[in-house]
Amino acid sequence: MSFDRLWADLEPVGRDAGSGGYRRHTWAGADTEARAWFTEAATARGLDVRADRNGNLWAWWGVPGPGAVATGSHLDSVPDGGAFDGPLGVASALAAVDELRGRGVAPARPIAVTVFAEEEGGRFGVPCLGSRLSAGEVSPERARGLTDASGVTWGQAMEAAGHDPAAMGADPGALADLDVFVELHVEQGRALEDTAHPVGVASSIWPHGRWRMDFTGRADHAGTTRLDDRSDPMLPFAHAILAARAQAERHGARATVASALIDPNGTNAVPSRVSAWLDARAADAASLEAVVDGVREAAAGAARDHGVGYAMDAESLTPLVEFSHGLRDRLAAVVGAGAPDPRVPLLPTGAGHDAGVLAAHVPTAMLYVRNPTGVSHSPQEYARPEDCHAGVLALADVLQDLLARPVRRGGAR
Amino acid sequence: MSFDRLWADLEPVGRDAGSGGYRRHTWAGADTEARAWFTEAATARGLDVRADRNGNLWAWWGVPGPGAVATGSHLDSVPDGGAFDGPLGVASALAAVDELRGRGVAPARPIAVTVFAEEEGGRFGVPCLGSRLSAGEVSPERARGLTDASGVTWGQAMEAAGHDPAAMGADPGALADLDVFVELHVEQGRALEDTAHPVGVASSIWPHGRWRMDFTGRADHAGTTRLDDRSDPMLPFAHAILAARAQAERHGARATVASALIDPNGTNAVPSRVSAWLDARAADAASLEAVVDGVREAAAGAARDHGVGYAMDAESLTPLVEFSHGLRDRLAAVVGAGAPDPRVPLLPTGAGHDAGVLAAHVPTAMLYVRNPTGVSHSPQEYARPEDCHAGVLALADVLQDLLARPVRRGGAR
Repeated sequence: MSFDRLWADLEPVGRDAGSGGYRRHTWAGADTEARAWFTEAATARGLDVRADRNGNLWAWWGVPGPGAVATGSHLDSVPDGGAFDGPLGVASALAAVDELRGRGVAPARPIAVTVFAEEEGGRFGVPCLGSRLSAGEVSPERARGLTDASGVTWGQAMEAAGHDPAAMGADPGALADLDVFVELHVEQGRALEDTAHPVGVASSIWPHGRWRMDFTGRADHAGTTRLDDRSDPMLPFAHAILAARAQAERHGARATVASALIDPNGTNAVPSRVSAWLDARAADAASLEAVVDGVREAAAGAARDHGVGYAMDAESLTPLVEFSHGLRDRLAAVVGAGAPDPRVPLLPTGAGHDAGVLAAHVPTAMLYVRNPTGVSHSPQEYARPEDCHAGVLALADVLQDLLARPVRRGGAR
Repeated sequence: MSFDRLWADLEPVGRDAGSGGYRRHTWAGADTEARAWFTEAATARGLDVRADRNGNLWAWWGVPGPGAVATGSHLDSVPDGGAFDGPLGVASALAAVDELRGRGVAPARPIAVTVFAEEEGGRFGVPCLGSRLSAGEVSPERARGLTDASGVTWGQAMEAAGHDPAAMGADPGALADLDVFVELHVEQGRALEDTAHPVGVASSIWPHGRWRMDFTGRADHAGTTRLDDRSDPMLPFAHAILAARAQAERHGARATVASALIDPNGTNAVPSRVSAWLDARAADAASLEAVVDGVREAAAGAARDHGVGYAMDAESLTPLVEFSHGLRDRLAAVVGAGAPDPRVPLLPTGAGHDAGVLAAHVPTAMLYVRNPTGVSHSPQEYARPEDCHAGVLALADVLQDLLARPVRRGGAR
């Protein structure tokens, strides 16, 4: 299957020899290489590759226009992330095109294979930035000013990569041309492992968001300053880490403080400031709000106790995405028709996706490929080759079905 | 007074325009500039400047040899540290030489003005590294392999700065040549502010040390991984921060976690590892041990609870330094003789100093210059100009007295 060759070419791009993880950060080294791989692989298939105004890539089979069937994912990674999150959907999309051609399918409508930029927010902090820009959910002004850890702005990085940041903005025409978008993704959880199904269908994406917390203290000598005289931001920061866990337990949710910047981060100097990020997700909006409120109260209280300034701001917030039931059931029927057991699992997830952003504008669905450990955002992230093959075939079946009968006109949404 | 001119030249070197703090990191930019300032200022005074085998600088008035009277401090800083910690002692030493010459003093024994390297451990993690190498307390092998945050070794950095790392090692001959060492330093605390004394004399340095804690978890998707399935090193790290504070309160000590490296530090990825540093100091060895044991137990317990690996290792540990009572009383009498109130305060401190390292090998004393807020290791660190002048005069008086009557032969130690 052509997938194996595609994967063999893509998998080494940006893999760290030490950790085995990936650092494909948007507009830099390995991400640029991965995008070049995509352009080359798509062009070699006779697809017409174009970057849109927001730097997302579109490879067209047929003439771009109304009624298009689109599929794809992203190529960027979290710091030291896994091989599959994103790239599996892109490689599978190209392999599904090969499969359709092998079956002699001659599409009456255009097919697009997409690569969305900065899905993880790994470099500039806002996840799904490429798709959010196209959907008009993030303004070009805000995007241009986002900075990475070195202070480089999105605008500067985008320009250095050969794209014009002044051209960014919502792209309603492009989204209106799409009849349907399907994203294939590695499962992030292990619900499929105990079933006979290598492929599942997405039911919903939990409401989720990212909050920045700034604890402002005062630099002091750690060896000489009396405890009572300190304004040490590490103390409320520690309380915030523990509050996130406690609130997640209380509300059956996920809440994690996994990232922080400590300034100046010297061993013997009380920090003047700690900035930390809360990632929170829950099954419904009320639970999510309760989790975030709980963390805010605990952190603010601890900051007050220690004479530390505290501010908390949402950097992104995505409401519940309930994928179209009609479309999702249609996918499940197609996938199930080729499987020993036709009852394909419908899976909710706590992970955000470009498909979740597009779902508000375009009939959208997702396929998940089984992950034997459920581990993701980690060098240990994995999917078996035979399950990847099953994913490509399922995606080809789905695309073939979608080409045969439009979604929008059929009212499946 | 020549001090003002020296200070005006030195103070801007490496000052950050934004924070007002300093990042003089050993063997790099601003530290190198500050060392060049020292060499130029000392040479202009006819002093003979030499780097010793460990990269410490010695500026000689007279021929190097037995019976030398040495004074000095360091020029490196903690990240975003203050202007005075270190540089005040170096600039005051040169100004004291000028003062002695102005008085017509013709020393019968050599005087050395010293600059010790990497006193803060701000770049390579081990404080007082230059003096510890000379004292034989850190092996050259260990020093060569120490790395900064970018993975550059001490050996590489030292070589790039023009010093031979193969030549490093203990320097017992150089220390044996010293009759006495006096370090002038900005006060780190505010004991002098409520007195009439701009200058105090050190009584002791608390036992203190630095411990590295490594929490080893497993990278996972922060949005999808069930809480029970996680091995999240942030949780025991948070417990360690809070345990340090609790133990310090319990034992009337200082214990601070002010520095950490979070890997990979991605917002939506549970970290695979957190390394954090504990700085702890107490009035006596038993209290210090109790503090460190308390933090170790709390961190190890939390690590166990969360399925996280834990290791804790001492990076440096300095026992109680009780400065020679005879010498300290001699300094206090000299300083008090010129003051309205002869009862000069004798001050203990939680801060480590090169003087503390040398005290085991050479009769050693310290002078403190009043700090109106007590703030240190911070851009807000301050000493009034008139107090700095008083410091220079006190140091000149002390040096003149020490030149007149040897310490070692006099048995003052």
